[in-house]
Amino acid sequence: MKEIMKTLVRTGPGSPTGQLLRRYWVPVLLSSEIAEPDGPQVRVKIMGEQLLAFRDSEGRPGLISEFCSHRGASLFYGRNEDNGIRCSYHGLKFDILGRCTDVPQAPQVCERMAITGYPCIERAGMVWAYMGPKDQQPEPPGVEWANLPDSHVFVSKRLQECNFLQAMEGGIDTSHVSFVHKFEVDNDPFHQGVKALDYIKKDGNVVFEIEKHDGGLTLYGRRNGEPESYYWRITQWIFPWYTLIPPFGEHALGGHVWVPIDDENCWAWSINFHVDKPLSAEERHHLEAGRGIHSPYVPGTDVPGGSFRPLANKDNDYLIDRVAQKERRTFSGVFGFSAQDASLQESMGPIQDHEQEKLLPSDRGIVMARRMLHEATVGLDQGQRPPGLAPRTQHVRSAGVLLPREQSPQDWARDHLVYGEGDPVYSL
Amino acid sequence: MKEIMKTLVRTGPGSPTGQLLRRYWVPVLLSSEIAEPDGPQVRVKIMGEQLLAFRDSEGRPGLISEFCSHRGASLFYGRNEDNGIRCSYHGLKFDILGRCTDVPQAPQVCERMAITGYPCIERAGMVWAYMGPKDQQPEPPGVEWANLPDSHVFVSKRLQECNFLQAMEGGIDTSHVSFVHKFEVDNDPFHQGVKALDYIKKDGNVVFEIEKHDGGLTLYGRRNGEPESYYWRITQWIFPWYTLIPPFGEHALGGHVWVPIDDENCWAWSINFHVDKPLSAEERHHLEAGRGIHSPYVPGTDVPGGSFRPLANKDNDYLIDRVAQKERRTFSGVFGFSAQDASLQESMGPIQDHEQEKLLPSDRGIVMARRMLHEATVGLDQGQRPPGLAPRTQHVRSAGVLLPREQSPQDWARDHLVYGEGDPVYSL
Amino acid sequence: MKEIMKTLVRTGPGSPTGQLLRRYWVPVLLSSEIAEPDGPQVRVKIMGEQLLAFRDSEGRPGLISEFCSHRGASLFYGRNEDNGIRCSYHGLKFDILGRCTDVPQAPQVCERMAITGYPCIERAGMVWAYMGPKDQQPEPPGVEWANLPDSHVFVSKRLQECNFLQAMEGGIDTSHVSFVHKFEVDNDPFHQGVKALDYIKKDGNVVFEIEKHDGGLTLYGRRNGEPESYYWRITQWIFPWYTLIPPFGEHALGGHVWVPIDDENCWAWSINFHVDKPLSAEERHHLEAGRGIHSPYVPGTDVPGGSFRPLANKDNDYLIDRVAQKERRTFSGVFGFSAQDASLQESMGPIQDHEQEKLLPSDRGIVMARRMLHEATVGLDQGQRPPGLAPRTQHVRSAGVLLPREQSPQDWARDHLVYGEGDPVYSL
Repeated sequence: MKEIMKTLVRTGPGSPTGQLLRRYWVPVLLSSEIAEPDGPQVRVKIMGEQLLAFRDSEGRPGLISEFCSHRGASLFYGRNEDNGIRCSYHGLKFDILGRCTDVPQAPQVCERMAITGYPCIERAGMVWAYMGPKDQQPEPPGVEWANLPDSHVFVSKRLQECNFLQAMEGGIDTSHVSFVHKFEVDNDPFHQGVKALDYIKKDGNVVFEIEKHDGGLTLYGRRNGEPESYYWRITQWIFPWYTLIPPFGEHALGGHVWVPIDDENCWAWSINFHVDKPLSAEERHHLEAGRGIHSPYVPGTDVPGGSFRPLANKDNDYLIDRVAQKERRTFSGVFGFSAQDASLQESMGPIQDHEQEKLLPSDRGIVMARRMLHEATVGLDQGQRPPGLAPRTQHVRSAGVLLPREQSPQDWARDHLVYGEGDPVYSL
Repeated sequence: MKEIMKTLVRTGPGSPTGQLLRRYWVPVLLSSEIAEPDGPQVRVKIMGEQLLAFRDSEGRPGLISEFCSHRGASLFYGRNEDNGIRCSYHGLKFDILGRCTDVPQAPQVCERMAITGYPCIERAGMVWAYMGPKDQQPEPPGVEWANLPDSHVFVSKRLQECNFLQAMEGGIDTSHVSFVHKFEVDNDPFHQGVKALDYIKKDGNVVFEIEKHDGGLTLYGRRNGEPESYYWRITQWIFPWYTLIPPFGEHALGGHVWVPIDDENCWAWSINFHVDKPLSAEERHHLEAGRGIHSPYVPGTDVPGGSFRPLANKDNDYLIDRVAQKERRTFSGVFGFSAQDASLQESMGPIQDHEQEKLLPSDRGIVMARRMLHEATVGLDQGQRPPGLAPRTQHVRSAGVLLPREQSPQDWARDHLVYGEGDPVYSL
Repeated sequence: MKEIMKTLVRTGPGSPTGQLLRRYWVPVLLSSEIAEPDGPQVRVKIMGEQLLAFRDSEGRPGLISEFCSHRGASLFYGRNEDNGIRCSYHGLKFDILGRCTDVPQAPQVCERMAITGYPCIERAGMVWAYMGPKDQQPEPPGVEWANLPDSHVFVSKRLQECNFLQAMEGGIDTSHVSFVHKFEVDNDPFHQGVKALDYIKKDGNVVFEIEKHDGGLTLYGRRNGEPESYYWRITQWIFPWYTLIPPFGEHALGGHVWVPIDDENCWAWSINFHVDKPLSAEERHHLEAGRGIHSPYVPGTDVPGGSFRPLANKDNDYLIDRVAQKERRTFSGVFGFSAQDASLQESMGPIQDHEQEKLLPSDRGIVMARRMLHEATVGLDQGQRPPGLAPRTQHVRSAGVLLPREQSPQDWARDHLVYGEGDPVYSL
């Protein structure tokens, strides 16, 4: 495991895990960060690559190297006009794919002056890029929320100051909900009167079953429900960086994407959505305020190209409140799902020292995910196609459901969680 | 000497000097930083180890690893209740000695989940830990001020941003008093009318004699006194990090402890005390204001677990005042004994480059201390017991005294500075 | 070229390029930073050396090691009095050449306690030091502006946060004027009604000719002028770090010096001057406000020994204004010649990655300068005298001039740009 982890935490250009992740569509930034054609370009770093995102005169998003091929000056100080960015130092110009379209001093050398450029698409108010080999570009992402009308989806991103894997593992490992998030579920106004909270409070002893499938893992958490039934909370991990949260009552469904900025930072994308109706004004207001799984930011950082650093962060001990902790209004002293996760995961160090960890039987979910990612990394090197590239394998949902005690949740899931259009959501 | 110094400045776990220092009781933090049972735990770093101090339900101080053995999350975000700290990530619980007392998911593995923990005692308003091998724990520290009633002692700590050794060497090397502290002695209201200051001003040419003893060094500084006598100022260095300052008149006695935070920072503990009476309200007010050998702090840093960074620090050139320097109200432009020492010692770099230093005959005191520390380090490696562990060897005092010119100060010291209860203090 | 650059960017003590640069007089700080005899000493770093500048009791500037030879304490906290700096730790004293003039504890060891000290001269309101071998000290610098009355010259310095070479290359490579500075020339009030600006706007296609001479390079930029003439803008690069800017109309002449602070920072000195008359009050006011080639500073940094960091700097994206950029009031969004240059040159990284650069034919000027510097470095190692040490070779001017189309600018320059006293300036 220790050897596996040394590989999995490295995602820079040329690294084995970096090559694997570059075979999938990568969420890069919010579409609203490059809102206008020919508007300001913004810097963005993904898997260690310093890139520049912009929208060209025709409204197409582009993601190119931040630096000019000539002398290495930043194109952030260039001009975005006439379908390209012109470097301010000597006037070289590049289009959305990084092709050089003008060298004023020597037009004949254009072709050899090209810079890195990645094809982009837009889904769910996000710009996604494909950063892998040109001939291997997959179909657009199949995760449900990326294929709904904008009205149905709310997306935010926040900086998390640790390796993407130790952040994602928090999304897979739902057993931690019973500790750091223990008193937090009561703080959400959309959780009022939700029946399932009673089951959770009455039975703190969750039993987990985990199932491997083509596109990832399904994690089943069992608690006592009614006398004849169990209450199952079903979580999904989808290759290579998606997690889906089991829903409560009428609350919007939720999920995350965990994308490496570099090996010591990641973007924690948080998504809420309804599959069959728009988010209400009240819901949207709640989410925009940074509640639920979202975050309020350090003022001025949630701007195009900004750091999107949470207001509660490691420099202020996540605004820890020892009085509230003593009064059991928060388990750890930190408020907010995201800040609670970040406080613990970032405290493990920018990259957790896996030499020191002592895994428990309850860590089976993250151990399986680590192994699957590593097998995919090794497989890619041996010429195998990465798992989960077919949109079909991403067509899964999370759920909360009461099932008769004798029923296998896996059997139920096969019928109900690989969804098609119009299929109902299971939540209580 | 250069080779010796390479060893002496390194005190992390496993380092030869680190192993020596871990054989003594280590001042860790103020008792007031963990004032209440089950109150907030605080982070503290000692000799490169990231630790957590807390007071359990029974009021006992504990010092344990900051990080959970399971996934490495910080226990700073845990809950201090029911005689232990519970990790907020997955609920593992640890007592004041680092023993794991609960693993909710797998109670059977408790024993192998233990983390580092060090036994603690409290003396002089400070928490002290023993960080060495379990079977080698020495008797509690014998230094005088650590064994007086709280009413007789005032203790403060401040961050010094350099290696502990170059800070401690300033405490041993009293010849620097004639320069950087030259005009400072006049600034202390408790020095008014003190006879000894006349001797110091009249005779700037101090002559030093140094004597090695079981527990450290005694340094004798000779100046002309009355026609028939010498005025002797006698300083003590006690293994491995204590220094005692010669007193003036009725002024409280003073001393320091120099404890490595890591190799580039140390805690400078400053102590004032009377051996036979409480500090007066006026004295205590003076010391609490950061005067004498104490320091005012950057506001907000003198809180539990805070940095205790002096207001005058390297980022503001120690509030240097060139006008006051020109007017000879301060020798170097910096005010305050501590800031004067810190400004020079920190300016030598986080770890002084000993390849570059050119020692003078007047450096004999620090050379002897370095050699004694190094011999103890080598001796420990060869199975010898470190010096100065017996409290008796720490029963020494500093003094200021007029002696007939023909009298040997060493003879006098043997009779008067290895003290017992009720022995008088020699100060003028 | 890549191998050459690895050598050229390193200027610390003992480095080949560092040894070359140390053969020339080095601008160190403003004379006004050490205005008074026995006034406050200031820290200054040049080519990686941490130094202390001060003016002694007789008014002579001194440049010595910042650190005492004894224990390594900073002499910044020493006393500047009686023709030397006395260390505040143990009282050692040093004169302007670093000779030790007092060791209170051991006068007999004075000689072996000397520290580094460099001879200084003052020209153009600047202190210059000679940091090379004692027997190789050259004649004072011959560049024109360093030999004019103070009334004729205005000098400022600013921190540039990149290697000196990539800063200097901007001064040699005038082709970038057509891009980042494109709209800036119109913003200078002293450019109003200048005829040459019409030529520049009408002919954007500059053609360069470059000529090597004993002391550096002359760069000729040709544009169409009147029907029968060309408008030539003639730039000078003088060994090892001087550049001269072609003048406009009655505007003061301009130039720069690019001096390494360390390998990742440099001082960009900016000079304006008239060769035959004082700067007017209006001109001086304009320059002191940080206009033209000068910079406004982060408040509080333009003080003796300060950082002289420009107000527009990399931490604030050089105060980029995307609206002004869109409105074509600034090409890159950044305002001010210096900030425009710094924004691009600093964006290339503290030391440009020369492995990545792809030079164009239009980079011939900087390629020639790189090769000449490298040849001089290699030559020095082989015992050759560095070029451009004779003041005569520095007696060159920049110019802007209309010449008949058939006339060779090189022929013209030989007669008109190697100037003597009273020779006219060519500017239009």
